[in-house]
Amino acid sequence: NIKLDRLMKTIQQSAEIGTLPNGGICRLSLTDEDQKMRSLFLQWMKDCGLETRVDDFGNMYGRRKGRNNERAPVLAGSHLDTQPKGGKYDGVLGVLGALEVIRTLNDLGIETERPIEIVNFTNEEGARFQPAMLGSGAMAEIFNKQTILNMKDQKGFIFGEELERIGYKGLKENRQQDPFCFVELHIEQGPVLEDREKSIGVVTGIQGMSWLEAAITGRTSHTGTTPMNRRKDAVLLASKLIAKIYALAEEIPDLLVAVGRIQAFPNVINTVADQVVFSIDIRHPDDHVRERFEQQVKESLSTMTLVEGMELQIKDLDKIDTDSFSKEIIEVMEDAAEKHSFSYMRMLSGAGHDAKYLNRITPTAMLFIPSINGLSHCEEEFSTPEDIEKGVQVLFDTVLTLANK
Amino acid sequence: NIKLDRLMKTIQQSAEIGTLPNGGICRLSLTDEDQKMRSLFLQWMKDCGLETRVDDFGNMYGRRKGRNNERAPVLAGSHLDTQPKGGKYDGVLGVLGALEVIRTLNDLGIETERPIEIVNFTNEEGARFQPAMLGSGAMAEIFNKQTILNMKDQKGFIFGEELERIGYKGLKENRQQDPFCFVELHIEQGPVLEDREKSIGVVTGIQGMSWLEAAITGRTSHTGTTPMNRRKDAVLLASKLIAKIYALAEEIPDLLVAVGRIQAFPNVINTVADQVVFSIDIRHPDDHVRERFEQQVKESLSTMTLVEGMELQIKDLDKIDTDSFSKEIIEVMEDAAEKHSFSYMRMLSGAGHDAKYLNRITPTAMLFIPSINGLSHCEEEFSTPEDIEKGVQVLFDTVLTLANK
Ligand SMILES: NC(=O)NCCC(=O)O
Ligand SMILES: NC(=O)NCCC(=O)O
Repeated sequence: NIKLDRLMKTIQQSAEIGTLPNGGICRLSLTDEDQKMRSLFLQWMKDCGLETRVDDFGNMYGRRKGRNNERAPVLAGSHLDTQPKGGKYDGVLGVLGALEVIRTLNDLGIETERPIEIVNFTNEEGARFQPAMLGSGAMAEIFNKQTILNMKDQKGFIFGEELERIGYKGLKENRQQDPFCFVELHIEQGPVLEDREKSIGVVTGIQGMSWLEAAITGRTSHTGTTPMNRRKDAVLLASKLIAKIYALAEEIPDLLVAVGRIQAFPNVINTVADQVVFSIDIRHPDDHVRERFEQQVKESLSTMTLVEGMELQIKDLDKIDTDSFSKEIIEVMEDAAEKHSFSYMRMLSGAGHDAKYLNRITPTAMLFIPSINGLSHCEEEFSTPEDIEKGVQVLFDTVLTLANK
Repeated sequence: NIKLDRLMKTIQQSAEIGTLPNGGICRLSLTDEDQKMRSLFLQWMKDCGLETRVDDFGNMYGRRKGRNNERAPVLAGSHLDTQPKGGKYDGVLGVLGALEVIRTLNDLGIETERPIEIVNFTNEEGARFQPAMLGSGAMAEIFNKQTILNMKDQKGFIFGEELERIGYKGLKENRQQDPFCFVELHIEQGPVLEDREKSIGVVTGIQGMSWLEAAITGRTSHTGTTPMNRRKDAVLLASKLIAKIYALAEEIPDLLVAVGRIQAFPNVINTVADQVVFSIDIRHPDDHVRERFEQQVKESLSTMTLVEGMELQIKDLDKIDTDSFSKEIIEVMEDAAEKHSFSYMRMLSGAGHDAKYLNRITPTAMLFIPSINGLSHCEEEFSTPEDIEKGVQVLFDTVLTLANK
């Protein structure tokens, strides 16, 4: 069985890199903190006797040999980057849980039929560079390589240059593009498991999402002299458009929408702003509903902008359809949960995960454990050690079963 | 008479420092651009034989001797800093117009009874450092000196340090705290003169203003997993509050309100924002109306925030009552306009100006010329050379009359 103490100590060591005042972590992708975390993880992998390598998007792999090394490996992992105000478990649990699986196999001297590889994907969060799940998506050849390498963060830093700067630009041939399967353990980041009092979520798929960026152009003018009816106030229009987006969403069951990022220009107290740019994140389990909503948002925002005599551009940043995971792996996971008599349920994931893109190239499924109060992407994010133990134990059994298939 | 060609050439030289793509200027206070403009202005003053000095807030003076140098000088000027998307004339006209007055007096070999001093005040715009009209207000001892020197811009740069960095931290004894009077020529920055077809506005006072800063605190959470009814979305609340502020303002004649600056945190596409900070700029000719509105905004925003279960703090950044200028100087200005048969009218200023604070320590009045389409704090800001000539001519006659009183 897995060793909870060892795992919790390892998670705690990760939480010390980029620590925030209230116990959370800020470890944006390809920053110095990410670099520090990566070298610690590399060392841990080596300490377990894994063969390590890094691919051309900075994804890190550690390989444990099997009896038959010609066979495709079982791949398990997640990401070690975090949100700017992130928690200790989002992503981290999946990578360090996979590391604990390896340590346990070593403890028990178990040899598997297939090799096992654990993985840390680059820039899963999408907080610094959009799109999210960049490393896994790039590995699965969902994105254009040059576009990804040239992508800029909000401050203008370039993905490819940052990757080189922190020393994690590896080789294309190091990508694992033909695994036997992929499994990812993650915190739920929502309230469903807690509400239903289950310890394990067996994830059947991931809901689709659309990421848009709206840019309003009005006109700057003096706040002290310009009559209200002569203004083209981009902040005023933005506030109306944003309120409208949320109001439209209220009508549609299960639809989630958020404007998380907003910027005004010139952003000065006594000048009416001529530009506001904001993001729109839309999610729904049914792709048609999501697409209809997106259309509705685009139309009604355009009309409202027209009425105010201003201009609006809406750009698509990212768009991913709802995906279903492998029935075979789902069953292996359910068997493992049942073997230990852990309470479990099937569920759809609200958040995107690296498993999303891996699912495009190999049989994939995920395990969730409860997030207290359903909180994530915040410092308060928490999961109990009991649930963490159960989750990693099910991951262990799942990996072991798959590696002997 | 003044020389329009020479003046326009001088204004053009100023417009070449911090030039923006569409003909405007970005010359924020105490930046490298401001420094460059200041040294050019210093040279111009020296070239006219003025005795120059700089005070402890970076206000720059040039003194032309009179017959009787014991007598208090006539002070004339404005500011050379601009908005981030500013025009060529806001402030600049008042300083370089005063320079043209000196050049004309020199041309004509006129000796005045009193000395004349021209002045460039620091950080009038309030775009980089709040409060606005900082140099004139500090000179008039409206503000606490230590508070001002320690004040930070949005990036954390400190006023006092920036002043030293650009080499314009002078001496306290250089302040002109006892002038005979102060006159300031400025563009109107609004549409009144143009609408009424007048070339000259004789400004009878400045409307009051309140600058507030509202900060909402909600809670970060995951945009893909958190049900809408479990969120504390600071951007959503901000959009409702801002729309409400503007809606309240619609009910009140002549009330101006603007939210020019807004910032969200952590400002990430897939995290519900837990903090939004925005500015509120409120103006009205009647102080009671302004104060009542301010109260109304504070109350209704607080109630709306309470309903959403979030927190709101509203900070007062600046508050200035409506002021009336000197009747004597207003009459001198009207006489000058009449002498040249220029069309003119009395009016209140919508914008704040350095004259506002000078008025607290010495008899003060202002002259306006029309702004095409009422535009200012934007690159399109424009005044015709004809109006500029008339304005500077009236300034010349006004200064000359006052300097012989
Ligand atoms: N799990 C997670 O937070 N992924 C980031 C991508 C998303 O926003 O769903
Ligand atoms: N004239 C001018 O733009 N002054 C800045 C202070 C204000 O916003 O009124």
